[in-house]
Amino acid sequence: MKKIMNQPSAIVDEMIQGLTKSYPDYVSRLENTNVIVRSDLKNMSQTVGLVSGGGSGHEPSHAGFVGEGMLTAAVCGEVFTSPTPDQIFEAIKASDTGKGVFLIIKNYSGDVMNFDMAKDMAEMEGIKVDSIIVDDDIAVEDSTYTQGRRGVAGTVLVHKILGGLAAEGASLEEISDFAKQLVPQIKTIGLALTGATVPEVGKPGFVLADDEIEYGVGIHGEPGYRKEKIKTSYEFGQELIGRLSKEFQFKQGDTYGVLVNGLGATPLMEQFVFINDVLNQLDETGLKIAFTKVGNYMTSLEMAGISLTLIKLENRYLELLNKSVHTIAW
Amino acid sequence: MKKIMNQPSAIVDEMIQGLTKSYPDYVSRLENTNVIVRSDLKNMSQTVGLVSGGGSGHEPSHAGFVGEGMLTAAVCGEVFTSPTPDQIFEAIKASDTGKGVFLIIKNYSGDVMNFDMAKDMAEMEGIKVDSIIVDDDIAVEDSTYTQGRRGVAGTVLVHKILGGLAAEGASLEEISDFAKQLVPQIKTIGLALTGATVPEVGKPGFVLADDEIEYGVGIHGEPGYRKEKIKTSYEFGQELIGRLSKEFQFKQGDTYGVLVNGLGATPLMEQFVFINDVLNQLDETGLKIAFTKVGNYMTSLEMAGISLTLIKLENRYLELLNKSVHTIAW
Repeated sequence: MKKIMNQPSAIVDEMIQGLTKSYPDYVSRLENTNVIVRSDLKNMSQTVGLVSGGGSGHEPSHAGFVGEGMLTAAVCGEVFTSPTPDQIFEAIKASDTGKGVFLIIKNYSGDVMNFDMAKDMAEMEGIKVDSIIVDDDIAVEDSTYTQGRRGVAGTVLVHKILGGLAAEGASLEEISDFAKQLVPQIKTIGLALTGATVPEVGKPGFVLADDEIEYGVGIHGEPGYRKEKIKTSYEFGQELIGRLSKEFQFKQGDTYGVLVNGLGATPLMEQFVFINDVLNQLDETGLKIAFTKVGNYMTSLEMAGISLTLIKLENRYLELLNKSVHTIAW
Repeated sequence: MKKIMNQPSAIVDEMIQGLTKSYPDYVSRLENTNVIVRSDLKNMSQTVGLVSGGGSGHEPSHAGFVGEGMLTAAVCGEVFTSPTPDQIFEAIKASDTGKGVFLIIKNYSGDVMNFDMAKDMAEMEGIKVDSIIVDDDIAVEDSTYTQGRRGVAGTVLVHKILGGLAAEGASLEEISDFAKQLVPQIKTIGLALTGATVPEVGKPGFVLADDEIEYGVGIHGEPGYRKEKIKTSYEFGQELIGRLSKEFQFKQGDTYGVLVNGLGATPLMEQFVFINDVLNQLDETGLKIAFTKVGNYMTSLEMAGISLTLIKLENRYLELLNKSVHTIAW
């Protein structure tokens, strides 16, 4: 393992220090916690607070999406480890302006349990809390840490769209209803070229041969659905779009948005080559693409690979995706 | 070699297609060239055009910095290969609104020669052209492809600051004078954990042992100044700041900006840990830090490693760094 770090056990704390010192105009750390909040929290208008988070190692998720128009707070767990309920509770308390707090939870059993416990704690203190579970990864049903499907890069689109809605002054109930419609319209599938190494473990979570890739690997290295020899970007596009097509039941003329997400070590050059194939193939399928984004948004430490997220652009999704925000990483 | 691509020989063309299809509101491709221009070029106010570029493989440099307030055009060479004079000439012609064009050239012999030839071609057509060579990398004197010092991540700060100046309507002469003052105030040094593989070559440009790093490696894998066993982030900070300190002759109370740049495969987590050490150490030295930025700005394909750039914030540099721009990657 070669990593730029000091003590593995201190890596999340030092990351948070580096983040908040580097971007004080965007984010601050809630004292004595691993919670990142908007640095303009005290001047935030009276809107519903949006809280997300999860294990660290997926940067810029989620702290990079804290700021005006997106998240109010992000809770940073240890690497690939759910944040504890007390930390989430602190994030909820800090994010409540009286209109309540909405939690965006990626579907991992630990996250779901701990966010739920924090919700109970907050409700006992009289804070209105509601939540949505994001389970956009269509690769596999049930997984190492998940019942059902995992939550991955599509979560960032949920942050963006609900963030836009919250900024308009929507109520907790409106956001909750909107989220229930939104999440099923976002689906993701990926592939990995290499595994990632958790600093405190010191060796990769899985190993692929020099000419091998794996489809459907999770962002914590959870097993995917097939290993095979590396193919072309075009063929990767066919495989991933084929799976998404079955889920969405593509209809000619329907409008979608595309997010190509790098998993950490994949150069932007390869991500742009890949989205070129994806956009060409979706065009041949007769879909309209009205939104595109390419880059590292939901990573898995230094894993090489990509994920492809599609969002069916119904309702006001496109308008809310295009609203400007004040964050480090959107 | 595992890369997400089709034919290695087509990788730059396909990258440009993917980039321009994904971000049509930001950038367009000049027909039949590998030149990226602002997509609002026709409505650009009558300002000096700013052109940069170089070999591909450093994404988001330089195309990610094309847009209002930064570059007018970026020329994409083949991977780690200077763009040809005819391509640069096309970029110059497209960028001229009558006030002339300023070229920002990283110091590699091929780039310097080809940008100079393009300048001559443009001047023969009556376009006023001036240029600056960026040689911010203090690691070594002379290098595989360079006389003197190499141009690396600090170039992005030159794009930003001169872009701000050009947008204000500064003349070609004013920009040229400003650039000559600016470039010596920007210095960079880096370290690599792994090498990068050029797609058409198929194997890494250099190899480091599993516990080894190299200081001062160039963004094309040019040799650095020392290999040694991996140390802590804190010790990396001491080494790199020590070298920068000698160059700048740090004085207590002086104000600097800091750019920590990931070379491609280094997770943001590690970059934030590193900048935390850097900011702590600069604070102990008595410097004031008024600008910070962290992320992948000038990469070397999938190289793991980081560079540290300092800029001495004199003149109007800070104000120009903080101006808002419309680009994909700033």
